[in-house]
Amino acid sequence: MGDGNPRLLEARRLIRRVRRDQAREFLAEGPQAVREAVATPGVVLEVFGTPAAFDQHGDWLAEAPVSLQPISDKAAAGLSETVHPQGLIARCRFLDVPIARVMGGSARLIAVLAGVADPGNAGTILRTADAAGADAVIFTQGSVDPYNGKCVRASAGSLFHLPIVRAGVYAEIRAELAGAGFQVLGAASTATRTLGEPDTDRLLRARSAWVFGSEAHGLAEIESAAERSGAVVDEHIRIPIWGRAESLNVAAAASICLYASATAQRHSRS
Amino acid sequence: MGDGNPRLLEARRLIRRVRRDQAREFLAEGPQAVREAVATPGVVLEVFGTPAAFDQHGDWLAEAPVSLQPISDKAAAGLSETVHPQGLIARCRFLDVPIARVMGGSARLIAVLAGVADPGNAGTILRTADAAGADAVIFTQGSVDPYNGKCVRASAGSLFHLPIVRAGVYAEIRAELAGAGFQVLGAASTATRTLGEPDTDRLLRARSAWVFGSEAHGLAEIESAAERSGAVVDEHIRIPIWGRAESLNVAAAASICLYASATAQRHSRS
Repeated sequence: MGDGNPRLLEARRLIRRVRRDQAREFLAEGPQAVREAVATPGVVLEVFGTPAAFDQHGDWLAEAPVSLQPISDKAAAGLSETVHPQGLIARCRFLDVPIARVMGGSARLIAVLAGVADPGNAGTILRTADAAGADAVIFTQGSVDPYNGKCVRASAGSLFHLPIVRAGVYAEIRAELAGAGFQVLGAASTATRTLGEPDTDRLLRARSAWVFGSEAHGLAEIESAAERSGAVVDEHIRIPIWGRAESLNVAAAASICLYASATAQRHSRS
Repeated sequence: MGDGNPRLLEARRLIRRVRRDQAREFLAEGPQAVREAVATPGVVLEVFGTPAAFDQHGDWLAEAPVSLQPISDKAAAGLSETVHPQGLIARCRFLDVPIARVMGGSARLIAVLAGVADPGNAGTILRTADAAGADAVIFTQGSVDPYNGKCVRASAGSLFHLPIVRAGVYAEIRAELAGAGFQVLGAASTATRTLGEPDTDRLLRARSAWVFGSEAHGLAEIESAAERSGAVVDEHIRIPIWGRAESLNVAAAASICLYASATAQRHSRS
């Protein structure tokens, strides 16, 4: 397939968010992401690969019911957003579902990204939410695009594992969560309730949505926007800081919070 | 200060590791890092800043006993490794201490980076270790340089808060830790002992060093190197995976492990 091929040019345009949103398609790069993508029915439209990549991954690719498009190393680099392209890229359909779909009866743990701007952080939270057995991850309008190439890569395949929602403003999500009986939790350094204490553990057993704010301002942004519409969360919870760090990285904080909830919920059922 | 100024050219060479190691100096970029650097006695050699940056941060910089070097926006961009330079860069002396210094009587929790290659992950672990009140972070020879610009930035100032050690190969560190009475812990998906269970919590109360391996291979690299010299860790501990993720990001895993230890150690003392 020549580098001037229209399908390749079309795929390349998906590196930009505006084009992704028009086409409702995105690129998943690298063997791990492509493998998870082809394992998800109805998601992959085609897989672009260099001869070396098709050679190396031919075994599982041959069994996948997807169209394989051979491309040059140069073309693969053009589709890639990484420093060391691995020569394998899947063009995929958007996977996100309406918010109502993830609030169903059995859902117990949801992560909400409300202003998380760094795609590496967002993808890492997606991966951790998957590992912790969360039921969904919701991205507000003010967060990075979940289909951003760096986010897809940082999620290490988890984008294909659990439902994601691309939602509007936080206030709408807050209302939906409340309506579905979720308590909404947010980490805050000034909270009196502390993670790791027995009282907090008991609280965490209930159906919960954890809200994670922006890298720079935490929950302050949505809190100032919400002043008129009521409390942003039901409970603020403090992650103790025993050293001299001012705060934690948002993905590190999310790991601690989501695992605390998942552990508390599971122990309460056993 | 002109852009051809020898001090500026000299500082710029510190972007490369080989030059950092020769000079035993590194660059800390951005207001947060520079503020923590100048708050640490004897570390900062000089602070380069654009007129705008000196204007904005003049209040606390004026009080700092350091030499201020005005530079142009272009020169600041040349010293910077970020997409959006903030115009403030400190040239600093290396901070690392000999390994014997961090094994002292009161140290109870240490993080060891044994093959962590991504500077963002390493810096995030440093920040989390600081937050969790850890006593030191040790970087093995096979890990990224703690003075890498991205690592310094991801540490969000924590590089200046707790002792760091640049050590040799893992086997040496292992011996030092054992000699100082630390139990050495490693996360492994195949372990029978699970984080979050009461037995594990009791184990975590002892003086502990957590070892975190490479992004790609976990502890496998140091384990294969150590086959002749004995066990790489005293206890493998499993972080439960309740969803479909294969594993966690190393910095996410480190957050969960370090906070589990810090919490267990503190609750055992109260």
